[in-house]
Amino acid sequence: MDYKILFLIIDGVGDHGNREFFYGKTPLEAAKKTNMDKICRDSECGLVHVIDVGIVPGSDTGHLALFGYDPFKYYKGRGIFEALGLNIDLKPGDIAFRINFATISEDGTIIDRRAQRNDFGINTILLDFKEILKKIEEEYNIEIIIRKGVEHRGALVIRGVESEKVSETDAHRENEKIRKIEPLEEKANKTAEILNKILNEFYEFSKKHPMNIERKKQGLLPVNYLLIRGASRFIPLDKDEYFEKRYGLKGIFIAGAFMYLGVAKYVGLDVYKPPGATGTVNTSLVSKAEAAIEKRDKYDIVFVHIKATDSLSHDKKPKEKKEFIEKIDEVFFARVKDEFDIIVVTGDHSTSSILGTHISDPVPIMIYSPINRKDPVKNFAERKCYKGILGQIKGTDIMKIILSKINKAIWFGT
Amino acid sequence: MDYKILFLIIDGVGDHGNREFFYGKTPLEAAKKTNMDKICRDSECGLVHVIDVGIVPGSDTGHLALFGYDPFKYYKGRGIFEALGLNIDLKPGDIAFRINFATISEDGTIIDRRAQRNDFGINTILLDFKEILKKIEEEYNIEIIIRKGVEHRGALVIRGVESEKVSETDAHRENEKIRKIEPLEEKANKTAEILNKILNEFYEFSKKHPMNIERKKQGLLPVNYLLIRGASRFIPLDKDEYFEKRYGLKGIFIAGAFMYLGVAKYVGLDVYKPPGATGTVNTSLVSKAEAAIEKRDKYDIVFVHIKATDSLSHDKKPKEKKEFIEKIDEVFFARVKDEFDIIVVTGDHSTSSILGTHISDPVPIMIYSPINRKDPVKNFAERKCYKGILGQIKGTDIMKIILSKINKAIWFGT
Repeated sequence: MDYKILFLIIDGVGDHGNREFFYGKTPLEAAKKTNMDKICRDSECGLVHVIDVGIVPGSDTGHLALFGYDPFKYYKGRGIFEALGLNIDLKPGDIAFRINFATISEDGTIIDRRAQRNDFGINTILLDFKEILKKIEEEYNIEIIIRKGVEHRGALVIRGVESEKVSETDAHRENEKIRKIEPLEEKANKTAEILNKILNEFYEFSKKHPMNIERKKQGLLPVNYLLIRGASRFIPLDKDEYFEKRYGLKGIFIAGAFMYLGVAKYVGLDVYKPPGATGTVNTSLVSKAEAAIEKRDKYDIVFVHIKATDSLSHDKKPKEKKEFIEKIDEVFFARVKDEFDIIVVTGDHSTSSILGTHISDPVPIMIYSPINRKDPVKNFAERKCYKGILGQIKGTDIMKIILSKINKAIWFGT
Repeated sequence: MDYKILFLIIDGVGDHGNREFFYGKTPLEAAKKTNMDKICRDSECGLVHVIDVGIVPGSDTGHLALFGYDPFKYYKGRGIFEALGLNIDLKPGDIAFRINFATISEDGTIIDRRAQRNDFGINTILLDFKEILKKIEEEYNIEIIIRKGVEHRGALVIRGVESEKVSETDAHRENEKIRKIEPLEEKANKTAEILNKILNEFYEFSKKHPMNIERKKQGLLPVNYLLIRGASRFIPLDKDEYFEKRYGLKGIFIAGAFMYLGVAKYVGLDVYKPPGATGTVNTSLVSKAEAAIEKRDKYDIVFVHIKATDSLSHDKKPKEKKEFIEKIDEVFFARVKDEFDIIVVTGDHSTSSILGTHISDPVPIMIYSPINRKDPVKNFAERKCYKGILGQIKGTDIMKIILSKINKAIWFGT
């Protein structure tokens, strides 16, 4: 293998035309991105329906599709990706949930689903909570793992129960009451019982915890509840379906946010969270560029995920999104663009910075390779790329096209 | 739901390039349509393969696909749509056929498959024929319903037989003999026997009927036979698959021709046949426009079907087709274009006015919405729309795309 491949995933990069800020252009169309456009001139371009026409991809399903794994076949819920991303060593059959560390009132009303996104004290509370978890583990002959991620996020894993089919606690809205967890099938009775116990015990334990007294002093809401959702059972991929086996490429996935690392791990990619990569707007793009170049020598394909474009869209900040794209171009892309033989740039979905949510509109893609049919598209942007020679493809097509660019394409017939 | 959606279906609107009339343009390309083109400038455009690439849609399957119901899954023959369109209250298991009221000679040769499209006297004959039907009903312990539609068209329903698998009477050509109906499976023996009896009795009864003597006086051919085809068994959709449940949108379908109303009813849409809407070139487009605007207040999505473009193509009248498109633009579209938030314009299939038949070439589509990625296409026409950002989609994609324009798109993943 002589080719070195960079696959850049700019989260939520596609958008709507915005009359208010950009005279009807999208943030990507409005952004000045000299380096990307330079590579774009020699690329094949198109639009990607990451899952399918008219379907809004989640971050998890979107990434599965970009890695070439049909989400309709492989997706079994988000919890396992959060857990894998947080370095929990899942065993087959483990049941995993994503957690929000949250604030509720005495009567069980949700005050803040994210405890002000402030994680002060959470790790200490979790450490002290282990005593109580131990008793529950012994009572039910199971194992329980709770781990904190970035800000209010985390994962909960139960090892030793039969079913993950339980209802959620989370009303997904504030000022509503938390819901008791109910089994959705008979086998899940034990799971529901254990989860309700963990949640109740956590509430009783944490509300008196010194760190919450300290939070109060600092003017912060207490962390006194676990909102759980994204129930999923860990069924590892068959070894033959692992990324390297499937494509004959040694791959690594570089990101700052844990869930994405989890999806990559699930498909058998190595993962790396560079120092300073936070999955936020303050992430170090220099650090990511250096990591990409460094990992290039040991890997055939280096995936880099940049999250902030999506977050800024969710916050309805098109101007800041445009500026962050410009920063990606200047800081990250300028540094890496001459260091790889094949360069793919796309996103896991579009996110509307007008609506503040993922949208089903396809995402622009450019694929640079030394031998290709470069098309007349000169700008990496929605209403330029759609005129490209790739046309409108699906997320699961991309890896196949990459293979064809390195003369490793899948044959059918002779 | 704040958005109001108009979905205009111009039947058979796509066509071939025509050198004889339009210097190689299609009727739609040649037509002057100021209002549509104005909306087109702010729309996303593309081409629709209503069923799939290279497949010629029927009117029934085409409409199913536009409503978002995969015809390969949902289509079970045309008869039930004719019957539903004629307001026959079908029960599960009913067997329905479409009818042509026709003229045959003494020896069973088809003289005119449509009895000159003149329906004079048919309803009276049918009313008097009920006596005979009653005897057949009693003999076989079944129910029979025959209802006339527009011109020579109608529907026949039999309630209480096991199988609809019978051969057709209709040779689809004049000067050929009518065929006896044969069972295509053992369970259909009774069905075939009943049908042959109805047809024979109708011939014997009608040929002596005073209305046919009257027709002769007027220089008309007699109505003395029922050509039946489109056998289908009514299996209602599961309630969860009804349009409103499926999309969360209250919808109504406005048309002048019965079969189309039947397809709409089948998927659970409300239907409305405005006064003066005839499904012919003489239809009142003003009446349809007023109906669309009136219904808008009670419904989220208003479908309007305009038939004449297809009929004129079947009659190989490209010039008249072009003119009728201009009329749709001036009379209908000008009136409605500012009254809806989302406007979709397309057709159920293309019809060649050179060949006089449906063709598999894709149909232009434009989707106007306030938040979108409007593309550079400025004219609603075949060889303009294909350059649009929607690219080439399928009929069943359209409803999904509409949902995404009103921020109700289907998610997969989180």
